[in-house]
Amino acid sequence: MDTPPLLNETHDPSLKSWVESANDPATDFPIQNLPLGAFVMEHDGHRHAHLAVAIGDQVLDITSLAEAGYFQNDPDEEVRAIGRLPAWNAAMSVPGFIEKMRRRLQSFLRADGSGGQSARRLRSKVLRPIAETPLIRPAMNFNYTDFYASIHHATNVGTMFRPDNALLPNYKWVPIGYHGRASSIIPSGVEIRRPSGQTKADDAAAPVFGPCKMLDYELEVGVLVGASNRMGEPVSMGRADHHIAGLCLVNDWSARDMQKWEYQPLGPFLAKNFATTVSPWIVTREALAPFRCAAYKRPDGDPQPLEYLRDENNEQWGGFDITLEVHLISKSMREQNLPPLRVSRGSFRDMYWTFAQMIVHHTSNGCNLQPGDLLASGTVSGTSPDSRGCLLERTWEGTGKPRKPIELPTGEKRTFLEDGDEVVMTDWCEGGAGGHRRIGFGECRGTIASANA
Amino acid sequence: MDTPPLLNETHDPSLKSWVESANDPATDFPIQNLPLGAFVMEHDGHRHAHLAVAIGDQVLDITSLAEAGYFQNDPDEEVRAIGRLPAWNAAMSVPGFIEKMRRRLQSFLRADGSGGQSARRLRSKVLRPIAETPLIRPAMNFNYTDFYASIHHATNVGTMFRPDNALLPNYKWVPIGYHGRASSIIPSGVEIRRPSGQTKADDAAAPVFGPCKMLDYELEVGVLVGASNRMGEPVSMGRADHHIAGLCLVNDWSARDMQKWEYQPLGPFLAKNFATTVSPWIVTREALAPFRCAAYKRPDGDPQPLEYLRDENNEQWGGFDITLEVHLISKSMREQNLPPLRVSRGSFRDMYWTFAQMIVHHTSNGCNLQPGDLLASGTVSGTSPDSRGCLLERTWEGTGKPRKPIELPTGEKRTFLEDGDEVVMTDWCEGGAGGHRRIGFGECRGTIASANA
Repeated sequence: MDTPPLLNETHDPSLKSWVESANDPATDFPIQNLPLGAFVMEHDGHRHAHLAVAIGDQVLDITSLAEAGYFQNDPDEEVRAIGRLPAWNAAMSVPGFIEKMRRRLQSFLRADGSGGQSARRLRSKVLRPIAETPLIRPAMNFNYTDFYASIHHATNVGTMFRPDNALLPNYKWVPIGYHGRASSIIPSGVEIRRPSGQTKADDAAAPVFGPCKMLDYELEVGVLVGASNRMGEPVSMGRADHHIAGLCLVNDWSARDMQKWEYQPLGPFLAKNFATTVSPWIVTREALAPFRCAAYKRPDGDPQPLEYLRDENNEQWGGFDITLEVHLISKSMREQNLPPLRVSRGSFRDMYWTFAQMIVHHTSNGCNLQPGDLLASGTVSGTSPDSRGCLLERTWEGTGKPRKPIELPTGEKRTFLEDGDEVVMTDWCEGGAGGHRRIGFGECRGTIASANA
Repeated sequence: MDTPPLLNETHDPSLKSWVESANDPATDFPIQNLPLGAFVMEHDGHRHAHLAVAIGDQVLDITSLAEAGYFQNDPDEEVRAIGRLPAWNAAMSVPGFIEKMRRRLQSFLRADGSGGQSARRLRSKVLRPIAETPLIRPAMNFNYTDFYASIHHATNVGTMFRPDNALLPNYKWVPIGYHGRASSIIPSGVEIRRPSGQTKADDAAAPVFGPCKMLDYELEVGVLVGASNRMGEPVSMGRADHHIAGLCLVNDWSARDMQKWEYQPLGPFLAKNFATTVSPWIVTREALAPFRCAAYKRPDGDPQPLEYLRDENNEQWGGFDITLEVHLISKSMREQNLPPLRVSRGSFRDMYWTFAQMIVHHTSNGCNLQPGDLLASGTVSGTSPDSRGCLLERTWEGTGKPRKPIELPTGEKRTFLEDGDEVVMTDWCEGGAGGHRRIGFGECRGTIASANA
């Protein structure tokens, strides 16, 4: 395949929208993006979920567009039914649905659109500012799997937790993953209560129970599964990409001191399951087509993946060229109206395994994925210190050396997160050969509240 | 507290039912049990889920009982609404609901019942033989956590996987658990396809991908969560038991050769998530009241649990006195009409941690449990070889010694499961001081199908 999958005229950078803010070169949400979201609307005294896409600084209310009859003569049943859905799960499980919806919505939103007078009259009724919209999770995430796909992250953390045995022998063969907790996945903006738990100092005879003292974020990219596979029926490399509905940002909050004491032999549990924040928009695989890139090139000496994880097309286009940033704002910074401090910038090109390989591995034993399942990449870290996606790595200078805190503009120092700190993650795709429009993910935010008394 | 929680006149062993099979002393389902179940019924060309309880060898169809108006004048709104529910989740999350429903149903089912003529007329319409009823999962299990609460199991497996480091230092402090996969929880009777995956021989340079060669069962008891807790709000020991709706049997199928290669550092993943079988009936906490017992008595020298995991009432009544058995039937045994072979018999009294402690630990960091969540105990193994709840332990005779296969009556031998083998788990409570009726769990069955070609 010479061009990335799904690249077509919907990515034409000259396409403009009558929503002026969508034409701003700096927006995350041009007409070429149209990420899937949802929000809560009160009517008839009840709270209803409305489906939406983002366009510039506005939300396009798809449920209201459907209720106004905009899709009523559509040839596709799934498109006609969209107004009745409480979440994107069912729709995004239908092959080809997102591409169809993308074209319908571009036709409604484009500046040169010929939707006629009735479409024009609808415009004011179906737009509302993102900033004033109570966004919720766009899809129900029934299952959550967290991978460990950055070899730089695995090597750094391995060195800290197991100095003699940093990168385990299975790492270059197995896309390591484990199950996370679906019930505590929360949308961007919900406060995170500092967890309490057992920790044990190396020189102590017994553990103690109390508030976490090494609270951390983890910068990750998540896949939302579209089409499911039946139990007992693995997904092949040739089909894996088709199971990706889209991507979002994930902050896999982590209690490092609790993790160290609890994680053997069955893996992280309470150190992770108190909260996982996801960004409110699913940036579709269709929107990301211009930013597909080669999979990570394994250095000489590394083994090639086993046959079931290998595919030429994956080598050429299995990656996503995404830039990721983490920003920090302390309570004092907020009070002094200081801007967030950028703590790191990394690239998703650096991941050792692609999402396609993670999907194939996950289903290789017959495990069934369901629409809306969240598969997160694991912490995205690169080779340079400022590309490390969590504080555990970011403030680490090597075995035996003291941690080097991050200095905030207020003079405060951070080795791990303090109460009142807000973490803001952002990521986006831009540049490349075709002069394509920037495709952004929006923000993934969370503020730390103090522990239960 | 001098008597177990919830013990009352609904456990009176002299209570009899007009359903004659329920009065058989050997039945799992006397009128004192009434476990929660569900089945599929076709009408109007659609498949509908009906709620049910088991009584003797019959299913009492609660949805039809409700549709016939039996609950229409009930003072409790939840009882009146029961006919509209697709699963038990919402109902069993309401405090006190199960006790109320238990009394309503006993009054309908008891031999000396005074339900009047109309109730008598309903009898034939709402009963159907269990053997002819397509049972489904009684509750949606949105989240699944698997614990590791048998110290005997942890010690045996630890010795095999880590000869120098069998029982890790955290075991006696932390009720170790990890997240399982909710999407692949299946009801009793559904076939299990042998998984494929990566395995690596100790002396091989590289892993290979292929069908699992060490397929195993794990005998476990599961809690179905009733009342939820809000995110950020831990459950205390004094309240933990109230979050248990009931118990079921769990077979946590395991691919041992895959597990050994993949499980470090983040825990078991593909070795477990291809299938987990649950028994079709939720035996309620209310029904189990006569069989509550003291928590495991820690031997001298073991530490006491930390304060947040300690409670006098838990010490006295936190346990469940359940006997558990595993039976095996090979394809040849089935063809020769031979009865199943009992492979093990164990007791749930031997568990190091109680379910109350598991619930408190799970929520101690603020993690939210949801109605219908499944918390499994981990493999139930005792001290004697014939009380070990999985083949990994059952056919193990010690480090460096060859495994000792189980001999089947056909002359076949089993170290691990072969294609066509069926595993049948059963468990029950009986005996004790009050002459209480036996309370059984029914069966948890699964047959191994061959791997994908």
